[in-house]
Amino acid sequence: MIRMIRPDFTLTVTCPDQKGIIAAVTQTIAVGGGNILNLSQHTAVDINTFLLKADFSVDEHFQRPDFEAAFQEVATRFQMEWQLHDKVTKPRVAILVSKTSHCLYELLLKHQDGELPCEFPVIVANHPDLAAVATQFHIPFFQVDVAKGKSDYEADVQKILEDYRIDTVVLARYMQILSPEFTRRWAFRVINIHHGFLPAFMGAKPYHQAWHRGVKIIGATAHFANENLDQGPIICQDTIQVADTCSIAEFVQMGKDVERKVLFEALKRFLNRQVFVYGGRTFILP
Amino acid sequence: MIRMIRPDFTLTVTCPDQKGIIAAVTQTIAVGGGNILNLSQHTAVDINTFLLKADFSVDEHFQRPDFEAAFQEVATRFQMEWQLHDKVTKPRVAILVSKTSHCLYELLLKHQDGELPCEFPVIVANHPDLAAVATQFHIPFFQVDVAKGKSDYEADVQKILEDYRIDTVVLARYMQILSPEFTRRWAFRVINIHHGFLPAFMGAKPYHQAWHRGVKIIGATAHFANENLDQGPIICQDTIQVADTCSIAEFVQMGKDVERKVLFEALKRFLNRQVFVYGGRTFILP
Amino acid sequence: MIRMIRPDFTLTVTCPDQKGIIAAVTQTIAVGGGNILNLSQHTAVDINTFLLKADFSVDEHFQRPDFEAAFQEVATRFQMEWQLHDKVTKPRVAILVSKTSHCLYELLLKHQDGELPCEFPVIVANHPDLAAVATQFHIPFFQVDVAKGKSDYEADVQKILEDYRIDTVVLARYMQILSPEFTRRWAFRVINIHHGFLPAFMGAKPYHQAWHRGVKIIGATAHFANENLDQGPIICQDTIQVADTCSIAEFVQMGKDVERKVLFEALKRFLNRQVFVYGGRTFILP
Amino acid sequence: MIRMIRPDFTLTVTCPDQKGIIAAVTQTIAVGGGNILNLSQHTAVDINTFLLKADFSVDEHFQRPDFEAAFQEVATRFQMEWQLHDKVTKPRVAILVSKTSHCLYELLLKHQDGELPCEFPVIVANHPDLAAVATQFHIPFFQVDVAKGKSDYEADVQKILEDYRIDTVVLARYMQILSPEFTRRWAFRVINIHHGFLPAFMGAKPYHQAWHRGVKIIGATAHFANENLDQGPIICQDTIQVADTCSIAEFVQMGKDVERKVLFEALKRFLNRQVFVYGGRTFILP
Repeated sequence: MIRMIRPDFTLTVTCPDQKGIIAAVTQTIAVGGGNILNLSQHTAVDINTFLLKADFSVDEHFQRPDFEAAFQEVATRFQMEWQLHDKVTKPRVAILVSKTSHCLYELLLKHQDGELPCEFPVIVANHPDLAAVATQFHIPFFQVDVAKGKSDYEADVQKILEDYRIDTVVLARYMQILSPEFTRRWAFRVINIHHGFLPAFMGAKPYHQAWHRGVKIIGATAHFANENLDQGPIICQDTIQVADTCSIAEFVQMGKDVERKVLFEALKRFLNRQVFVYGGRTFILP
Repeated sequence: MIRMIRPDFTLTVTCPDQKGIIAAVTQTIAVGGGNILNLSQHTAVDINTFLLKADFSVDEHFQRPDFEAAFQEVATRFQMEWQLHDKVTKPRVAILVSKTSHCLYELLLKHQDGELPCEFPVIVANHPDLAAVATQFHIPFFQVDVAKGKSDYEADVQKILEDYRIDTVVLARYMQILSPEFTRRWAFRVINIHHGFLPAFMGAKPYHQAWHRGVKIIGATAHFANENLDQGPIICQDTIQVADTCSIAEFVQMGKDVERKVLFEALKRFLNRQVFVYGGRTFILP
Repeated sequence: MIRMIRPDFTLTVTCPDQKGIIAAVTQTIAVGGGNILNLSQHTAVDINTFLLKADFSVDEHFQRPDFEAAFQEVATRFQMEWQLHDKVTKPRVAILVSKTSHCLYELLLKHQDGELPCEFPVIVANHPDLAAVATQFHIPFFQVDVAKGKSDYEADVQKILEDYRIDTVVLARYMQILSPEFTRRWAFRVINIHHGFLPAFMGAKPYHQAWHRGVKIIGATAHFANENLDQGPIICQDTIQVADTCSIAEFVQMGKDVERKVLFEALKRFLNRQVFVYGGRTFILP
Repeated sequence: MIRMIRPDFTLTVTCPDQKGIIAAVTQTIAVGGGNILNLSQHTAVDINTFLLKADFSVDEHFQRPDFEAAFQEVATRFQMEWQLHDKVTKPRVAILVSKTSHCLYELLLKHQDGELPCEFPVIVANHPDLAAVATQFHIPFFQVDVAKGKSDYEADVQKILEDYRIDTVVLARYMQILSPEFTRRWAFRVINIHHGFLPAFMGAKPYHQAWHRGVKIIGATAHFANENLDQGPIICQDTIQVADTCSIAEFVQMGKDVERKVLFEALKRFLNRQVFVYGGRTFILP
């Protein structure tokens, strides 16, 4: 019989590198009553930046306020940015969709299977097509009217996100460009899936571009949306081999499997607190 | 005991699509004394183009001139471009290199292992570093002097290629841009390896570009060199996942394995007559 | 604009190898009014067996009975086994399930997306858990009572399959061993997914076996069920890398993605008439 | 400009899990003058075992004997097994070969490229075929006479290994079964490559077994040799897809690429101190 101990907390830390950081961090955890189950650490030597993620379980003596006070002293000493996430409070993630269902289904099925530690309180769409899928999974579905203009449209979306106290937004093949105001407001909290292996095939119809270029691989890229279309920090990518006997329609079909896989993996990395951002790129800790 | 019958000839055909082509082709082969062992056929419906590759063995009655005369009649009727390759005459391939050895070694070792049906009569370089490798494999090595200017330099290279009656040129990490005159003269007979998953990361230092962009995959692309740098028809591509904990130096190291694999595979496809070119892209038949 | 011509028929042929077969086959197709769009041919030289699959479209002069009569003459001459499949008549496939949903969802979603050219008229289960999924996709669901004994149980299943005029059965993680009578009756028409890279990890709990053996890859295998458990002819396989930091529960989760992919791919190959069986193994034509 | 700081030491630790271990370890490193660049930690909860690998650089105050004395106190307190490896002293690895060159070349070329932090002081063979390769790379080559019987033969091998002060042995397609005496003496210091995805296809001629079973993937496994043939703890594995049109000879050729990749990767993991062994399996830390 294999006993599974699940961590109670995840701590993430970023700071300028120097000696003694891990010792200070782990000592504080141990004194507070925590037992580390997994620790990943890396120093990005090109920018002298220390990155750490630690999962730990706690005993009955652990008191979160006491730990946070103690840790803040360490943090001040080392100029840390840090976050402590408990495993009970789940992030509230909104899914934005258009007409295509494969990415939406992937997220909902993986969630149903217990693989995504978040809640999906609401689905927002600019088309009515996927309302039935939302209903199947008992999730409120809102179709927002695009015709009223981007500004009013995004105000409506924003209101829904606020009403449902949303932390993070996933664009699951949401075919609508977000305004700079929106992406700035939700900086590093909007995950998009692009159906090309960026930076190749930015913009519209990447599979058409790929087919005409005669590439032998197609791919997909999950990234944070920012104000520059398809240029935000990349979170996850993958590719598959394609044959020249494939039509564009077959590229589109085969690509769906890569898209859903990459988007799921990106959200999982994000929810597992593996994604660090600096200098226009991400850094994924194992 | 498994008996291997090896094909004696490979026939490749391209023509406008219409009914009855395969019947005419295969009937001619059968009447001439050939037995088809593998046949791949595809119709590129977007341009109404028929593509065929057939490997066949022959009996003692087969006479090549008779077959070619008979086949020319079929070819004329269907407006075919066609080529008949026997398996005894091996293409003569020159390898051009600079300082890096991994692609050169891959080609020479795979050749030594019987996996590349060609001859490597000569290695040409713009640096002396790899002369010892050529010597190990008993292949003449010429270092051509770059200092004398591109025009004179390429005249020297051209002379060597002619002296050794070269059919095809492989650029095995040859860090020198070829002139339009040279690539036109050797159109669809120069195979280059680029260390990026084209069309991403064209030009110099693709691994540096990739690292700074924060991509999660790196790759390589083998393509025909043409007068537009890194834009010729693609023959083979592949990618691998990389971790953000990798340095640029590690990208370069890990990339070597993809480069050598993709270049080898591209040359193998070319030698096996699988590569058809039309409209700026290739079409690889299985 | 890219025009897609879809084939109207697929012809499959197996016979002892000799000269002139392809010519005879393709000539008959051309004379009958067919235009071949894709042709795959291979000779399994170890058993001197010729295999062919041809997809062709037809013009208005094509008459199926005339073609079949003409082709039967060719078939007799070459001792062929052959089948002609039109693209309108779709195979009727029953899905058998237990409690796990990922393979079932994969088949239903891919079907909904137009990627599986068959019908799913019925779902049969030995547990009630997946009834709601069947309802979502408007497919009749039957839970058969296992308690009544294998013989009666299988008689019930057989009756359902007959009532729904089923051609082919897919076991989508159906955790019930079929009797030799059943597998013989449905020989080469029952496709099963096993959650191990066979022939490793036959039998129960393959992920547990894999974890304890300390393997670095896990995989899945789709195969025809026959009377020897997990030993029928293999149709499709794949593997993924796993880390030693993974628990058995994570093996199970990660394995689901491989299982659904391999089962979908196996059914697709089967429906596309790519799967030939001989000598205890399959031969998949491209 | 990216500055690379290379670690000076790697510390590995195994012990029963309890609170405070990482704090104690990292505190000792910091006090001793070390700066941790990468730290991987995992707790194998099924056996309550703590595993840690830390790479650190040191300042001018670091004194190895002082550090070792200080660390031994920590080690005693937590019942640790531990090792401290400096990056200057390189393991001395002997390569044992028979007739096939691809694995040998891979190790020598990767070593030449700076990717394997070890020395290859000697190559031992039971056939003369690869002597020329050893000469190319200026490595002493010994052919030991198999005819004299396994016991005398292995005594000769052992003497060579001692003469060259060998730490670790790599069997690079060495087609000779080692005696239990030999494998026990060199326990967890002999790395073998098997050309099958173990535990499938143990024993002789795995590619023949695979072809006749009709599998759709082939693979390779690097493992520690122990007294049970092909059953030692696995270090690295990989597979590739194969087509049914491939002959056994093509399986053998395609398999070579997997074998050399897996053997190289296994040795790299071993030299990077990532490989922990317990309970008949390995545990690879990232």
